[in-house]
Amino acid sequence: MEFSSKLLERAVNEMSRLPGIGKRTALRLVLHLLKQPKDQTLFLSEALTAMREDIRFCESCHNISDVEVCEICSNAARNHAVVCVVEDVRDVMAIENTGQFRGIYHVLSGKISPIDGVGPGQLNIASLVAKVQAGTVQEVIFALSPTMEGDTTNFYIYRQIKDYGVTTSAIARGIAVGDELEYADEVTLGRSILQRVPFENSLKGQ
Amino acid sequence: MEFSSKLLERAVNEMSRLPGIGKRTALRLVLHLLKQPKDQTLFLSEALTAMREDIRFCESCHNISDVEVCEICSNAARNHAVVCVVEDVRDVMAIENTGQFRGIYHVLSGKISPIDGVGPGQLNIASLVAKVQAGTVQEVIFALSPTMEGDTTNFYIYRQIKDYGVTTSAIARGIAVGDELEYADEVTLGRSILQRVPFENSLKGQ
Repeated sequence: MEFSSKLLERAVNEMSRLPGIGKRTALRLVLHLLKQPKDQTLFLSEALTAMREDIRFCESCHNISDVEVCEICSNAARNHAVVCVVEDVRDVMAIENTGQFRGIYHVLSGKISPIDGVGPGQLNIASLVAKVQAGTVQEVIFALSPTMEGDTTNFYIYRQIKDYGVTTSAIARGIAVGDELEYADEVTLGRSILQRVPFENSLKGQ
Repeated sequence: MEFSSKLLERAVNEMSRLPGIGKRTALRLVLHLLKQPKDQTLFLSEALTAMREDIRFCESCHNISDVEVCEICSNAARNHAVVCVVEDVRDVMAIENTGQFRGIYHVLSGKISPIDGVGPGQLNIASLVAKVQAGTVQEVIFALSPTMEGDTTNFYIYRQIKDYGVTTSAIARGIAVGDELEYADEVTLGRSILQRVPFENSLKGQ
């Protein structure tokens, strides 16, 4: 792409470094900003810079927060003995939206993924193990996405904490509510039979 | 969506004001920036602000430019008597990429579109008519997208300049090079027969 303006070219290049945004999309977005009042671009730039510079992570659960200890961790009404292990802030938001969980979280900030160069050392695993060792945790719930990386991470953490007398559980995997059985994939359907639950349990949350 | 951080929420909200970017995509982009070095966010913000504040439009053709008169308009080797009317800078880039046009451009910055509240007064039409009236232009090529808005805009301009002894033309519309005839839509195929060209002409550009 040849640009008639270096300013335009630089804006498009920076924009296209975002994931899933190619040069053409970046150009469309930048030209959109040009047609809008200057304030919109200013607000966007300021919001991004402020976010990147000033954002903090909760000292306890590593979730994104504006304060030292996030609202969930500092909430005495929540059960601090039950810790739900998730990948990132989006998973916290998703679980909070269900309104079904009253414990606290532990945000790993990723999954073990050798192919992306992410080892256990880059994740917030040590602080989770330390929490368990301290003896305040009764149950650790693994709530990573059911992928190979998620399973690997779950198992890595499980091996480190299993000797400290903590209950470990994993979120249920199976046929999604509302799904037709005939369209479910074989692996999921197969596991949902092997991992069947007492019928009384299957009524929870209905 | 409930966010654990106001900074994050503001960044996501501003990002999701861009066209085609919803809240979820915005969150994904913002979390990506959080994982990258701070410089990337800084460079993006600076590039956008600098672009929005300092960008200029060529005084002659209204194309985006860093200087008063853009490189194309100030190029004496180009034919200033042939003016190609386009919608925006993307069309200039597309035509320049073909390497088939040696005239100059006139960027309207939009199309007449009553449904979007865009009338002729908001477009760079008056300066084009003035150029034609000044008598320096021999041919005006209409190169807007073949939509209803494009056709309306073409016709609006055509009526204003037709009495000044200028040649007017429109880019050829027809079956795209490489397309199969049987898959072409009826309107395009029908017009391509009505607007057939002498065979010698059809060899141009091969």
